[in-house]
Amino acid sequence: MKMIIAIVQDKDANRLSNEFIDANIHATRLSTTGGFLKAGNTTFLIGIEEKRIDEAMTIIKETSHARQQFMNPSLNLDGSEHGSSYPVEVQVGGATVFVLPVDQFMQF
Amino acid sequence: MKMIIAIVQDKDANRLSNEFIDANIHATRLSTTGGFLKAGNTTFLIGIEEKRIDEAMTIIKETSHARQQFMNPSLNLDGSEHGSSYPVEVQVGGATVFVLPVDQFMQF
Amino acid sequence: MKMIIAIVQDKDANRLSNEFIDANIHATRLSTTGGFLKAGNTTFLIGIEEKRIDEAMTIIKETSHARQQFMNPSLNLDGSEHGSSYPVEVQVGGATVFVLPVDQFMQF
Ligand code: NI
Ligand code: NI
Ligand code: NI
Repeated sequence: MKMIIAIVQDKDANRLSNEFIDANIHATRLSTTGGFLKAGNTTFLIGIEEKRIDEAMTIIKETSHARQQFMNPSLNLDGSEHGSSYPVEVQVGGATVFVLPVDQFMQF
Repeated sequence: MKMIIAIVQDKDANRLSNEFIDANIHATRLSTTGGFLKAGNTTFLIGIEEKRIDEAMTIIKETSHARQQFMNPSLNLDGSEHGSSYPVEVQVGGATVFVLPVDQFMQF
Repeated sequence: MKMIIAIVQDKDANRLSNEFIDANIHATRLSTTGGFLKAGNTTFLIGIEEKRIDEAMTIIKETSHARQQFMNPSLNLDGSEHGSSYPVEVQVGGATVFVLPVDQFMQF
């Protein structure tokens, strides 16, 4: 048994929760802030058998990895458009993952 | 020194907190969701000397273990009772517990 | 790579966050209650290279260590002052810190 601690952006957290459920991986979810990812983030605690670590890692990577995304710059407050408003490329997502050893695991 | 991470149902969390206080076990409490237990849950982080692990485990088990409970099915929204409303047996409680190794422990 | 889990009083948490940012230490922040410190507290999860552990410990110690502070006793509810109201000395701050081993560390 190992403990995975995965920190992902809030925007990826619901999708990741669902992927864990589909894979029958029990993940406990904590609302967290700051740190590795600047935006609001979510931390998952996952108790997992060693043979399933790669599977969990693949799910986290595919769901939450850092990627570029085009966004429209926000409109001016009065709704007018001054000058050009080309979409800008921003980085979203990103996951920081730790695997910790576990001495004992019990369920009551 | 070891770190116990215990995930219990919200409904058992206050009672467990009090039991830890009675036993002079310092537990830090996190509000968490999902995972091993379907309902809202609470995660406790507990730094503990190795010789007291069994004592902490017993407290968690006695306070939070899964058990059957009879509940009355909820009334209809208009307060009327359609058909029979026998009490139903549901499972409540349950605890998932990890013991992690600790390299260093300090208090400032 | 190691995982530092640091529990500090809420009143020291913002200053500690800023110190971590200055030092380029990535700390994920959890809102927690109870446990080692009686008042509301904040738990930081910090993934850190072994050679930087002492640096992180020094930052936590300097920012959050327990110290005496003089406080004015609160006024009576009706705003009046009955008798003397000398400042009283109270203990504030305090940090509880665990260093946990890490098997794997990944960023996606
Ligand atoms: Ni992709
Ligand atoms: Ni029982
Ligand atoms: Ni000082």
